[in-house]
Amino acid sequence: MIQEYLSQHRGQFIEQLKCLMRFPSVSAQPAHRRDILACADWLAHHFGSFGLDVKLYPTKGNPILVARTRRAPRANTPSVLVYGHYDVQPPEPLDLWKMPPFEPVERGGKLFGRGASDNKGQFFAHVKAVEAYLKTRTPLPVNVTFLIEGEEEVGSTSLIAFVRQRARQLRADYIVVSDTSMFSKDHPTITYATRGIAAMGVRVDGPSRDLHSGVFGGSVANPVLALARLLAACVDARGRIAVPGFYDDVRPLQKWERAQFRRLPFDERAYAHFLGVHSLEGEKGYTTLERRWGRPTFEINGITGGYQGPGTKTIIPAWGEAKITCRLVPDQSPEKIERLVSQYLRRICPSSVKLGLISHGGYRAFHGSPSGRGVRAAAVALKRTFGRKPVFVREGGSLPILDIFKRHLGGEIILVGLGLPDDNWHSPNEKMDLANFDRGMLMSATLLRELGASA
Amino acid sequence: MIQEYLSQHRGQFIEQLKCLMRFPSVSAQPAHRRDILACADWLAHHFGSFGLDVKLYPTKGNPILVARTRRAPRANTPSVLVYGHYDVQPPEPLDLWKMPPFEPVERGGKLFGRGASDNKGQFFAHVKAVEAYLKTRTPLPVNVTFLIEGEEEVGSTSLIAFVRQRARQLRADYIVVSDTSMFSKDHPTITYATRGIAAMGVRVDGPSRDLHSGVFGGSVANPVLALARLLAACVDARGRIAVPGFYDDVRPLQKWERAQFRRLPFDERAYAHFLGVHSLEGEKGYTTLERRWGRPTFEINGITGGYQGPGTKTIIPAWGEAKITCRLVPDQSPEKIERLVSQYLRRICPSSVKLGLISHGGYRAFHGSPSGRGVRAAAVALKRTFGRKPVFVREGGSLPILDIFKRHLGGEIILVGLGLPDDNWHSPNEKMDLANFDRGMLMSATLLRELGASA
Repeated sequence: MIQEYLSQHRGQFIEQLKCLMRFPSVSAQPAHRRDILACADWLAHHFGSFGLDVKLYPTKGNPILVARTRRAPRANTPSVLVYGHYDVQPPEPLDLWKMPPFEPVERGGKLFGRGASDNKGQFFAHVKAVEAYLKTRTPLPVNVTFLIEGEEEVGSTSLIAFVRQRARQLRADYIVVSDTSMFSKDHPTITYATRGIAAMGVRVDGPSRDLHSGVFGGSVANPVLALARLLAACVDARGRIAVPGFYDDVRPLQKWERAQFRRLPFDERAYAHFLGVHSLEGEKGYTTLERRWGRPTFEINGITGGYQGPGTKTIIPAWGEAKITCRLVPDQSPEKIERLVSQYLRRICPSSVKLGLISHGGYRAFHGSPSGRGVRAAAVALKRTFGRKPVFVREGGSLPILDIFKRHLGGEIILVGLGLPDDNWHSPNEKMDLANFDRGMLMSATLLRELGASA
Repeated sequence: MIQEYLSQHRGQFIEQLKCLMRFPSVSAQPAHRRDILACADWLAHHFGSFGLDVKLYPTKGNPILVARTRRAPRANTPSVLVYGHYDVQPPEPLDLWKMPPFEPVERGGKLFGRGASDNKGQFFAHVKAVEAYLKTRTPLPVNVTFLIEGEEEVGSTSLIAFVRQRARQLRADYIVVSDTSMFSKDHPTITYATRGIAAMGVRVDGPSRDLHSGVFGGSVANPVLALARLLAACVDARGRIAVPGFYDDVRPLQKWERAQFRRLPFDERAYAHFLGVHSLEGEKGYTTLERRWGRPTFEINGITGGYQGPGTKTIIPAWGEAKITCRLVPDQSPEKIERLVSQYLRRICPSSVKLGLISHGGYRAFHGSPSGRGVRAAAVALKRTFGRKPVFVREGGSLPILDIFKRHLGGEIILVGLGLPDDNWHSPNEKMDLANFDRGMLMSATLLRELGASA
């Protein structure tokens, strides 16, 4: 029944997903505030259209949507919270997109557009699974609450407060999140750890205005050079972060994890080729998967300063600015990392320039159990719908809210990613494989049944 | 007669200068190509309007204007070439201008707008002096040729070829250039040396597209960080340029120069305050004036890469780019410096990123005699019109064409600057003091007479 409903309505679902993707719900850019609100409204209306009780909660940031199935009559019916986010990354650089980022296009079994895989397409598979139960009047084996936020790409600030305030109301036995990727399209995947993040802005101010580099050059510090020196001093020649104390709280990778990662088929050359680099680079002493999944990073996300137009402009720029993010692993604290980086930069910054540091927030890494009851149910659901036993991996990306869920809601967190490594998250030409969307809907329906049976 | 003519027509001259400044003749930006052509046409028409023979020479770049007075009947009349440039620096950053950069405004005896002092206002003073001779039918004591180019701010490429090809036609006994600044408004100034320049673009390419900094972070070199490391490695902690061989051809400052510079009233604190910096910084072992006038530099003019909008974007950027200029002193060669910098960067660049280097050209420093016949005439003219004996200084800025003039035209080069240190060359709110424009016209008329008398 459910399987039939899903396959009969597939075309309609994809059209609905396209509608959802047409909202340029870019949380990082204030200009898109209206699009964010319109996207949330559309979603609320959509959840209501197949019988969920929906509430849109305004916040200081973007609205949070909570949609619940009506409570099952059985008293001990397990409860499942399905998390997702309707905000997306900025689409820039626009010139590298093969299609407009907010005009989704289906091509060769793939749906292209910003948000296709991160995260609209993924959470939508769960939405459609629940719809299938309701529309086919199949009894739902669990009570489901959807919790869909609009600030994941900017640190989930509002949701963090929301979850803390409404912990009792949101409490669930299982928390299901599809906001990760499969190891490959042949490897259904359960993720048991994600990295955290600490984000900062670094600004170096020199002269009060751009100066003629001939008339004044040599007598005054170049703030862009000073910035380059500060940034360069943060990572040493072996790829280790040179900020004192940075590694103090890092939980080392366990033997079983390192052994397991090594068993995964990972082709370094194909990976380098896929990224378009001549050779890989990272912290000495670790494999590529270990570096991506289990080690912290210091990354410059962007830099700007002085003249950037065509030709030359012979100036000493007035200032230079960089955006930095550090990926964190258990048990690093974003506040401490930010403090350490700030102290270090202040210590090494020369007095001839002015250093400005701002926090863009952060959150801790997540580390769950690879052997809980919910994870075992997900393994069954994945095997049944993808035809293979899942692999257990960590994830280099961050899900800001997981640590908050863990601390405040208490249920078992299950990360079943439907993305693929080549989905171009945060990059131009983001896409979702529609085969994964199809299997994802079925997997979700199966998972809800398995979780219901586990009670 | 001449003095009366100049003071009677002052208002009209300033209006004409404003017309000239309204052309956004930005040579670095291809979008302004039409404005360049329109500006050259306006000038040609203007020179013709008071009786000069004008020719506008098309080039591969921007037109070169040559305007001649009709030859004086005396056979041994000295010839004077007056050089200037009608192109200007880009006006960016626009938000720091107190007025639109190409809508000149007179305020408190100052004329504000891009090009006011660098160089439209300065060469225009000479134009008006010659006009005064012609309109008052005062016999011109010298034959004057104006040579006005449109690529000074981008390296004078076309003029360099032009001067080489037409050396015979342009040859003059004296070459007068007002494209420098006075030491202060109380110090009429003769400049006997300027710095050269070598300009380059450095680009570091990493992954073929921006990557998710979580999913991929740690396994691939960050090209902006790699760029920062390369740039940081170019200057050491003592402010010395760390590129091997960089100083090999530097002609050391002479004792008499260092002694003379020390005699000039120079207030470091006032200078730092003027630039808006807390403290000055430069190569150890040299005074501020020595660093500006007699030592080479390594300057980053601009840097760009990755996400630069509001908030954060958690990417590893695909590339980073910087613009670099080195100011050169005698006897450094721009080609050799560019080669040394390129070799050094290639040597230290890791293989995990791709290094791209492009040349933006360069030219040698100029070093003339502080005691030639023309310079002595200029000293007389300055004393008579500014009421003080001039000081002899070097200049940190560059005049690309001087070395070419010296090598191909052979006349004595006289640098009599009418700019002031606070004229904001290459910066927002460029201006010219109209008192200097007034005295400049008189000084020019006097200089032409003195040069004529020197025959």
